[in-house]
Amino acid sequence: MKKELPCRSDCPITFSLDVVGDKWSLIVLRDLIFARKRYFQEFLGSPEKIASNILASRLKLLEKAGLVTRAADAVNARRVIYAPTAKALDLLPVMLEMLLWGTKYHAKANAPEPFVRRAATDRAGLIADLRAQLEPKLALR
Amino acid sequence: MKKELPCRSDCPITFSLDVVGDKWSLIVLRDLIFARKRYFQEFLGSPEKIASNILASRLKLLEKAGLVTRAADAVNARRVIYAPTAKALDLLPVMLEMLLWGTKYHAKANAPEPFVRRAATDRAGLIADLRAQLEPKLALR
Repeated sequence: MKKELPCRSDCPITFSLDVVGDKWSLIVLRDLIFARKRYFQEFLGSPEKIASNILASRLKLLEKAGLVTRAADAVNARRVIYAPTAKALDLLPVMLEMLLWGTKYHAKANAPEPFVRRAATDRAGLIADLRAQLEPKLALR
Repeated sequence: MKKELPCRSDCPITFSLDVVGDKWSLIVLRDLIFARKRYFQEFLGSPEKIASNILASRLKLLEKAGLVTRAADAVNARRVIYAPTAKALDLLPVMLEMLLWGTKYHAKANAPEPFVRRAATDRAGLIADLRAQLEPKLALR
């Protein structure tokens, strides 16, 4: 697979799209960050029904891009546990803006209303709270 | 071409990715919104070197998704002019956050420094200014 995170230009928007500009990467990060999923099987259970080969490929690319860590689970060393990195948490603003845009334009959007309201009115506070919950766990890696 | 903007789930992030989750859509919107490009040939000239068949396909999908309008040019009716819609301008926050993330993580990111600084410190003001410049032109369509 010749997917070496090419840089098509030095435009920072293009750079972001080179890393997460596809239909799946930000869904996997959503599951890691918002739903706190950590195991391969858990990602397969999301409503988007990602195929296991696509999931495996995405997780590898995300690890290579420095957005996901992969480690042996502390409880069962034969099980792999995934976690988002600080670089992935820095995509929170992008994801929250996508959440707001999708909520505005998708009639059946189903994100919890208090969460959407907070993303719209207190984005900085919401991001700070999510970071406070997630970052101490990153530090262990 | 069976690309009917499928909805993989009712998650609003997924909805946004179903519409603009690819390597090119937001680059075309960047050219329309920030660089004010309006003609097919102009998009071909961007540093990412989009292929003309991909550009044609993207413009069709963006039009179908209500993000781009396509009209006969007022000056030369045989020439097609493209413009972003209000729905596309509502993606400004997503694009600016991608700009900030890309600027942080791409060593060679080349967005103008005053623009990046303003996106980071006065995002609402920057968006209001961009809207004020772009929206009166949308109203003509």
